[in-house]
Amino acid sequence: MDAASLNWLSATDAARAIAEGAINSEQLVEACLARIRDIEPAVQAWQYLDPEHAITQARARDLDRSEGRPCGPLHGVPVGIKDIIDTADMPTEDGTVLHAGRTPDRDATVVTMLRAAGAVIMGKTVTTECATFTPGKTRNPHNPERTPGGSSSGSAAAVAAGMVPLAIGSQTNGSVIRPAAFCGVYGFKPTHGLIPRHGILKLSRTLDHVGVFGRTIEDVALICEQLTGYDERDSDTRPRARVPFVSTLAEEPPLTPQVVFVKTPVWDRAAAETQEAFAELTEVLGAQCETYECPESLREAWDWHRTIMEAEMAANLDLEWQKGRDRLSESLRTQLARGREVRALDYQQALARIPVLNQGFEELFSSYDAVLTPAAPGTAPMLAATGDPAFSTLWTLCGMPTLSMPLMKGSDGLPLGVQLVGPRHGDARLLRAARWLVSRVQAN
Amino acid sequence: MDAASLNWLSATDAARAIAEGAINSEQLVEACLARIRDIEPAVQAWQYLDPEHAITQARARDLDRSEGRPCGPLHGVPVGIKDIIDTADMPTEDGTVLHAGRTPDRDATVVTMLRAAGAVIMGKTVTTECATFTPGKTRNPHNPERTPGGSSSGSAAAVAAGMVPLAIGSQTNGSVIRPAAFCGVYGFKPTHGLIPRHGILKLSRTLDHVGVFGRTIEDVALICEQLTGYDERDSDTRPRARVPFVSTLAEEPPLTPQVVFVKTPVWDRAAAETQEAFAELTEVLGAQCETYECPESLREAWDWHRTIMEAEMAANLDLEWQKGRDRLSESLRTQLARGREVRALDYQQALARIPVLNQGFEELFSSYDAVLTPAAPGTAPMLAATGDPAFSTLWTLCGMPTLSMPLMKGSDGLPLGVQLVGPRHGDARLLRAARWLVSRVQAN
Repeated sequence: MDAASLNWLSATDAARAIAEGAINSEQLVEACLARIRDIEPAVQAWQYLDPEHAITQARARDLDRSEGRPCGPLHGVPVGIKDIIDTADMPTEDGTVLHAGRTPDRDATVVTMLRAAGAVIMGKTVTTECATFTPGKTRNPHNPERTPGGSSSGSAAAVAAGMVPLAIGSQTNGSVIRPAAFCGVYGFKPTHGLIPRHGILKLSRTLDHVGVFGRTIEDVALICEQLTGYDERDSDTRPRARVPFVSTLAEEPPLTPQVVFVKTPVWDRAAAETQEAFAELTEVLGAQCETYECPESLREAWDWHRTIMEAEMAANLDLEWQKGRDRLSESLRTQLARGREVRALDYQQALARIPVLNQGFEELFSSYDAVLTPAAPGTAPMLAATGDPAFSTLWTLCGMPTLSMPLMKGSDGLPLGVQLVGPRHGDARLLRAARWLVSRVQAN
Repeated sequence: MDAASLNWLSATDAARAIAEGAINSEQLVEACLARIRDIEPAVQAWQYLDPEHAITQARARDLDRSEGRPCGPLHGVPVGIKDIIDTADMPTEDGTVLHAGRTPDRDATVVTMLRAAGAVIMGKTVTTECATFTPGKTRNPHNPERTPGGSSSGSAAAVAAGMVPLAIGSQTNGSVIRPAAFCGVYGFKPTHGLIPRHGILKLSRTLDHVGVFGRTIEDVALICEQLTGYDERDSDTRPRARVPFVSTLAEEPPLTPQVVFVKTPVWDRAAAETQEAFAELTEVLGAQCETYECPESLREAWDWHRTIMEAEMAANLDLEWQKGRDRLSESLRTQLARGREVRALDYQQALARIPVLNQGFEELFSSYDAVLTPAAPGTAPMLAATGDPAFSTLWTLCGMPTLSMPLMKGSDGLPLGVQLVGPRHGDARLLRAARWLVSRVQAN
């Protein structure tokens, strides 16, 4: 491979090439930086990037290797970090002027984990305002007039544009799945509580998840295996055995996966071409895919999600509200004002629905390996907004692992995301089912 | 010991006598039933008691022993169960006409644990209305015009009156500590999450605790050792090693305990004679006791407790509110109406104070083995109400283990409770410090 194209290597291949001495981290990082110099003016994926600092890290990783120090599974591989995730060596500004110049003195747990795995922390990627709806500067790499999606806008765009092989984001509603779909990369949000959230802007304990972006399923598995673990500072993590993402993905599924195409109560929001595309997709899958239409009563789940999200955001962003609500966007201010008036009764009742919802889906997952459903209503809309998260809401509320796959294209030539959802704690098996599905579709 | 006085045996002595064959369970239960026949008309501790069923259980335990089946640590010992704790073989009516005739088809986890330890489930003890403020029929065994305290009224009174050696209750504010103080028995509420609450009327996940009543500290340790454990149906329990209550209590403290007499912001509610009694008590303890006056700002903690308790009660008793609020007492209806209007913002902010409060107390517990403080403002007041729980509120909010000890008497001759509070998860060591304190006071 020519040195100038190294930026397009998958993380798995890059890590292997570095481990084998075929390339070094500095070359890889240089290729990524060159790509960033070329297209960052058009894409604007980065909130903070110091090329010198990235190169310094790469050289240190190369020195590790040449001096025989232990090398991690991501040794020398650059990773982009959403700018709501704390880094001790770079600012973290959360997409709001209220936190401009904020310089945390510690890494978030996931950043510590990435450094321990040998990754180069490339820089901070653009987030929408406080990881909510008001867009940042990033544009869709496929078309600069379209949104990259949000809130993990820069992370999705940077991976799609070949600026880094991997990036980290977060999802409270549709903030990983939607930008992955719009930018045409894999976006994966593991089970709630699997990846620790300490050191990340907290919107909602119940709904906040860390997610990842990559250009291959193997890369998603590679980085997730490094990010799961127990952290006593995140009360939703638990001490448990590490999930063998990479080895599970490398296995063949014991049985041919059986998926269920689920039409939720927001199905009618899918564009006509999305509806047609899914009709074709389910036809391709044939006997391996059945269809399930959710009862209309499930529509309430979107209200429960909003009640929880807005109530918890109001509590977690109370200081911002008190100190500077006039410097928040009107849409965030409106959302927080609504959240401040939610009754504890309604909030608790919404929380209590989550285990009941999950129980209902457990039955579905006893018959099917995964749920197949759109990742977004259609391709990326125009820049003014980040698009509709409604196709993620239910799965985020349930805390289920979910993957956006760049399997289809719309009539405008832009990516049309396919979402695959698995049962809680079926994370690695979900990726394995996804690999089967991708090969099945591509063979067709 | 004459058979008619067996009811006054401690649980520890009774279990030993049964294990050694000196007495059998039937004799013990008969003695307790005889005592109940004598004084139940005056005390009214029992909501449900079927003497035949108690005797049947006792005979079954005696048969176990005679046929060489394994015998548990409470083999053949009768225990009273607060009537908010589900029993498969007896009604559980929660002190409200709304649940009259309610017959659960399963035991609460603690009842299962007691049966596994060989206990005889004697009957159901009187609770106030839904374990809140409105009194049941029970009277103080020391004076029928006085309250036994609430909400675990019957459990405290039954143990104090020699009807059973042990009973189970619950505490969301002061419902174990206060009746134990007023009735002159030991009442112990372990660390939040140590005893599973599945199958018990749920008022507040954050504040509900199971507690126990006994006439000796050894008995409290004996029963608690059987009740702690993990239950996946109580999200606040954790898989952890069983607490060695009995063996820890049997050891001498490695160093002479050092306690701190704490005056909280509600200290001014203590009766003059309570204030004097504590001045004497601290004098008796001499160098082993220092005094700490809490900052006035801590007064907010009582508001946080009320916000959490009322908000969670409103959610947990929503069905009762919807179906029959006209049949609730006015005081409970008022409390629920208030709870329904609590904002999720205030509720979450109150919840967030708990770890901060605990952090503050951790410093205090690094210098002292236990906090010494009144269990109630004074001796038991008149029957119309169950007394002021304010001396328990802070420790319940923090989820700390706390013990009421019948160490003193008021000028009316009624018990005046002394409360000893330990750090979270210092349960067994707290009982050991209490044993030292009791012997130190009695030696004086």
